[in-house]
Amino acid sequence: MRIAIAFAVGLALASTACQSPGTQHAIPAAPSGNTLTPAEVIAASMPEEWRTLDPENTLYMDFPNGRVIIELAPQFAPKHVANVKALSREGFFVNGGVTRVQDNFVTQWAQAADPARPPKTGVEKLNAEFTLSRNAPVPFDILPDPDTFAPEVGFSNGFYAARDKDKVWLAHCYGMVGAGRDSDENSGGGTELYTIIGQSPRALDRQLTVLGKVVQGMEILAAFPRGTGDAGFYKTPGEYQRYSDIKVAADVPEVQRTNLETMRTDSASFQTLVNSRRWRKDDFYKQPVGRINLCNVTVPVRVKQ
Amino acid sequence: MRIAIAFAVGLALASTACQSPGTQHAIPAAPSGNTLTPAEVIAASMPEEWRTLDPENTLYMDFPNGRVIIELAPQFAPKHVANVKALSREGFFVNGGVTRVQDNFVTQWAQAADPARPPKTGVEKLNAEFTLSRNAPVPFDILPDPDTFAPEVGFSNGFYAARDKDKVWLAHCYGMVGAGRDSDENSGGGTELYTIIGQSPRALDRQLTVLGKVVQGMEILAAFPRGTGDAGFYKTPGEYQRYSDIKVAADVPEVQRTNLETMRTDSASFQTLVNSRRWRKDDFYKQPVGRINLCNVTVPVRVKQ
Repeated sequence: MRIAIAFAVGLALASTACQSPGTQHAIPAAPSGNTLTPAEVIAASMPEEWRTLDPENTLYMDFPNGRVIIELAPQFAPKHVANVKALSREGFFVNGGVTRVQDNFVTQWAQAADPARPPKTGVEKLNAEFTLSRNAPVPFDILPDPDTFAPEVGFSNGFYAARDKDKVWLAHCYGMVGAGRDSDENSGGGTELYTIIGQSPRALDRQLTVLGKVVQGMEILAAFPRGTGDAGFYKTPGEYQRYSDIKVAADVPEVQRTNLETMRTDSASFQTLVNSRRWRKDDFYKQPVGRINLCNVTVPVRVKQ
Repeated sequence: MRIAIAFAVGLALASTACQSPGTQHAIPAAPSGNTLTPAEVIAASMPEEWRTLDPENTLYMDFPNGRVIIELAPQFAPKHVANVKALSREGFFVNGGVTRVQDNFVTQWAQAADPARPPKTGVEKLNAEFTLSRNAPVPFDILPDPDTFAPEVGFSNGFYAARDKDKVWLAHCYGMVGAGRDSDENSGGGTELYTIIGQSPRALDRQLTVLGKVVQGMEILAAFPRGTGDAGFYKTPGEYQRYSDIKVAADVPEVQRTNLETMRTDSASFQTLVNSRRWRKDDFYKQPVGRINLCNVTVPVRVKQ
């Protein structure tokens, strides 16, 4: 058996080696026998273990080949979320475009008009919303597995998150959505947005404002041709991948909405799901690993039942 | 300042907490001032810090929109590498196709003929080559940063690798190439190959045979339309993304070759590169992180100078 039980502790700066954070949690034991599939966990879940997406905090970005849906995180980036909604409501994003696709990094989109139309009720720039105080009233459902970048990782209302003794923040996992900025940390605002399409670049954590997560349509955003300009920008507007608009779901007639619900990350079924993946064992995966990385966890999303 | 100096140690099972592996290495200190860019490190590197790719262990897969180049890892998967080369040389892959693209997971390719042409000098199935003994004569250039999945991670001749007290193996980072198999661990062989196109699924480590790495053309393999069948398989052969052949570079006339070299992962310049990314600090990245994940390291590859 190649099951590595004796995982070494992470390496730390000499001065802090072997300090245990007070919140240390144990990794749950392996389930017996073959692990459940996500479909099996979902099928056995209770209605109250799901949370309906709030149309006021959901965005639709409609491409010719399908709808991308983004759940916003007003608890972590209230000003950016409010601004993106204001921009949407003033028509800022009408006939917008994906302007940048850098392989193994980000897909980024903007108004893409030339010349750019300035915001009216929205603004171009906001102060950064990189972190919250650790004491902020946001949930934090701990994932006890070791992480390269942060002392603690987990989920906050379904969003990938991390924290240390002082701060809590959203983590740049696959599909998370952030606000592009210039060199000035306070130069973002939501007029340009990006999502992660490769190995999660967690070094961006606490350096850009994360304001949401793609809950449908990553297969669209991740498959656009990579830009051949610097940093993956398309060289010409003709290459932009056009979307019709970015709309707040609440502003869309009910008949045109996509009503989704997401599994609550504080639910027993989610814990079962994570542990079933952590210790995955089935006809194909014969060697349970016993660890899972934050960014390898997929939070289930489905059409509202 | 949001620089988190006091990273906690990784969480470990209670019984093994704070055991230090004998090979523990310290994370190098932050460079002073702004960090070098990869281009700057490459420009300052010495010729002997690069290794020319061996045409006998390099594959070309030519698509209508460009060439994918794979470096093979015969030290880790000698039988699979020999078999893929035998399959190539008997024409097994002529007019092949990408048959599966599962978002945030893998792009997979095969012969894609219907009916399938059986191998002649190559074979369908080989015994698994998941791991080597830790004592195997393969280099291991340690990356001292904490990892979720393995006690030690690093690079072996430029390939992402990991090890524990008993074994050493190649790690499923973005761009690594493995041999698809059925449920039987000894049912792969190289007639179907895959590469990682999303968050690295390290739980596959030691469960599939990894035999190489894409060193050019990930922007092609990662941008194909996602398959809409189960597990991302294309539903119809008409959707297959066709390549003309998979050729061993040594079998291609020299004038048609793409001669590449890769930075040696045992070189001083590579250590400088990694540490510059670990502590990245420049006009945009103002908060040095002090950690890097194995799969976030890009090993430089360039046209041979």
